[in-house]
Amino acid sequence: MPELSFHLWPDVGDPEAVEFLVAWLPPDNMLELFPNLRVVFSVGAGVDHFDLSAFPPQLQLVRMLDPGIAQGMVEYVTLGTLALHRDMPRFLQQQRQQQWQAQPWVPAQQRRVGVMGLGNLGRAVIAQLRSLGFQLNGWSRSAHQLQGVTCFAGWEQLPDFLQQTDLLICLLPLTAETRHILCARNFNHLPAGAALINAGRGGHLQEEDLLAALDSGQLGAAMLDVLQEEPPGYSHPFWQHPKIWLTPHIAGVTSHDSGCDVLLDNVRRFRQGLPMHGAVDLSRGY
Amino acid sequence: MPELSFHLWPDVGDPEAVEFLVAWLPPDNMLELFPNLRVVFSVGAGVDHFDLSAFPPQLQLVRMLDPGIAQGMVEYVTLGTLALHRDMPRFLQQQRQQQWQAQPWVPAQQRRVGVMGLGNLGRAVIAQLRSLGFQLNGWSRSAHQLQGVTCFAGWEQLPDFLQQTDLLICLLPLTAETRHILCARNFNHLPAGAALINAGRGGHLQEEDLLAALDSGQLGAAMLDVLQEEPPGYSHPFWQHPKIWLTPHIAGVTSHDSGCDVLLDNVRRFRQGLPMHGAVDLSRGY
Repeated sequence: MPELSFHLWPDVGDPEAVEFLVAWLPPDNMLELFPNLRVVFSVGAGVDHFDLSAFPPQLQLVRMLDPGIAQGMVEYVTLGTLALHRDMPRFLQQQRQQQWQAQPWVPAQQRRVGVMGLGNLGRAVIAQLRSLGFQLNGWSRSAHQLQGVTCFAGWEQLPDFLQQTDLLICLLPLTAETRHILCARNFNHLPAGAALINAGRGGHLQEEDLLAALDSGQLGAAMLDVLQEEPPGYSHPFWQHPKIWLTPHIAGVTSHDSGCDVLLDNVRRFRQGLPMHGAVDLSRGY
Repeated sequence: MPELSFHLWPDVGDPEAVEFLVAWLPPDNMLELFPNLRVVFSVGAGVDHFDLSAFPPQLQLVRMLDPGIAQGMVEYVTLGTLALHRDMPRFLQQQRQQQWQAQPWVPAQQRRVGVMGLGNLGRAVIAQLRSLGFQLNGWSRSAHQLQGVTCFAGWEQLPDFLQQTDLLICLLPLTAETRHILCARNFNHLPAGAALINAGRGGHLQEEDLLAALDSGQLGAAMLDVLQEEPPGYSHPFWQHPKIWLTPHIAGVTSHDSGCDVLLDNVRRFRQGLPMHGAVDLSRGY
């Protein structure tokens, strides 16, 4: 797109000529700095790090629907699902304890995987897990229809969804409503010994409730890519917990190449008056 | 198959009526015990535990081509491939050392996965890995053509295959020829830092050579489901090796349900004079 002039902060060129801002989090006074700003593109898949109530309503906010993020997320969640399905955390513990002990094999057809969040990431993950033969449930705020997936919607149907889920995957956007959705009350709806993957945001998880559920056996194991505080403090109990696999927020990373394609496509769509992919509804929060 | 009389050892009924034997390893004097024996069915996918040179040539030997084994193997190898592709052994080490440190992400399209053994297990694994976008190479004794896979055949092409393989998966049958195929000479053909999954047999791996390759960095990590001696002795260096993930021979397990279907189908085929699925060529060894 050679006709588009591109500047790298802090070299912004003529501030009045700036229409588009690409950032993780722009400065609060962005409209003073760039009076003709029209669109803010987040480089992340979520916009929960923005204070949406203070976001200028005359601007559009767009989150990053990068196929690179989606691919990374599919890899990560498929890895986590298979690792928990095949008891890898237990086998690694056994290895260090010099135990050679098989565990009963549950066919994927009898393993119920529940995905929370049925946006572009959730649907990409579901497509891959379907090819491995898992039984699939989905839950989201609004009703969806997905082939081969038992879909649940809204808060009334959340307990039903959880009761039929052996392996729970959180890919929700973080909003005031979904904060701490991974909590004791909801863990208790799961079958005893269920497993958890959180690749959403750290704010989804009530961390003390996870520890209690792992201790009681209500949850069997968890794989977490995100935490309340990243990196976690030196004394955080997750570092050494034998039933927790922790990764440093690497599940889905925006790819330079494909992320640029998505960005430029959205600039073209904006100029043509078309809706942009990933445009955020400020009242809904994603 | 109600017309088929079934006995569970040691209650064999009339020994002269026994035509079929289902076993992991039958007794050496099976023809004395069962003079009218026709077929020996192994309950395992391989027959490397048989002394094929001493196997009565008038009997047929059949190995177990169970779709349950194949499904388990697809799960295990996909889990291992994603875990090594996404640096999980290193992330788990980092976790225990309280390090929160991302690693560069290599897209699956740039990761070259090489599968040794293109029989029913290798082909099932390849189909699943293809759906994740990996670059696929295959190697086997005889020439194969597989869609989307660069196929290599025979010993002359083994170095070429290895030079183009970042992640090596062994699913070969164990024969006199393939014993210790995972050795220093072949590791040295791989790109530095390559990873290994052995879900074939313990006899494929020269274990000391793996330790040396991990120490030198020629190999980055390994996931092993099989060992020379199972379980390994108390002082075996693999138990505590940080770059080795060890599982207790659980990758592909014969399923009672689907294994029975395969067995009965083969009995019917034998009676109709049709070739049985998994019939072993004693001279080839699989």
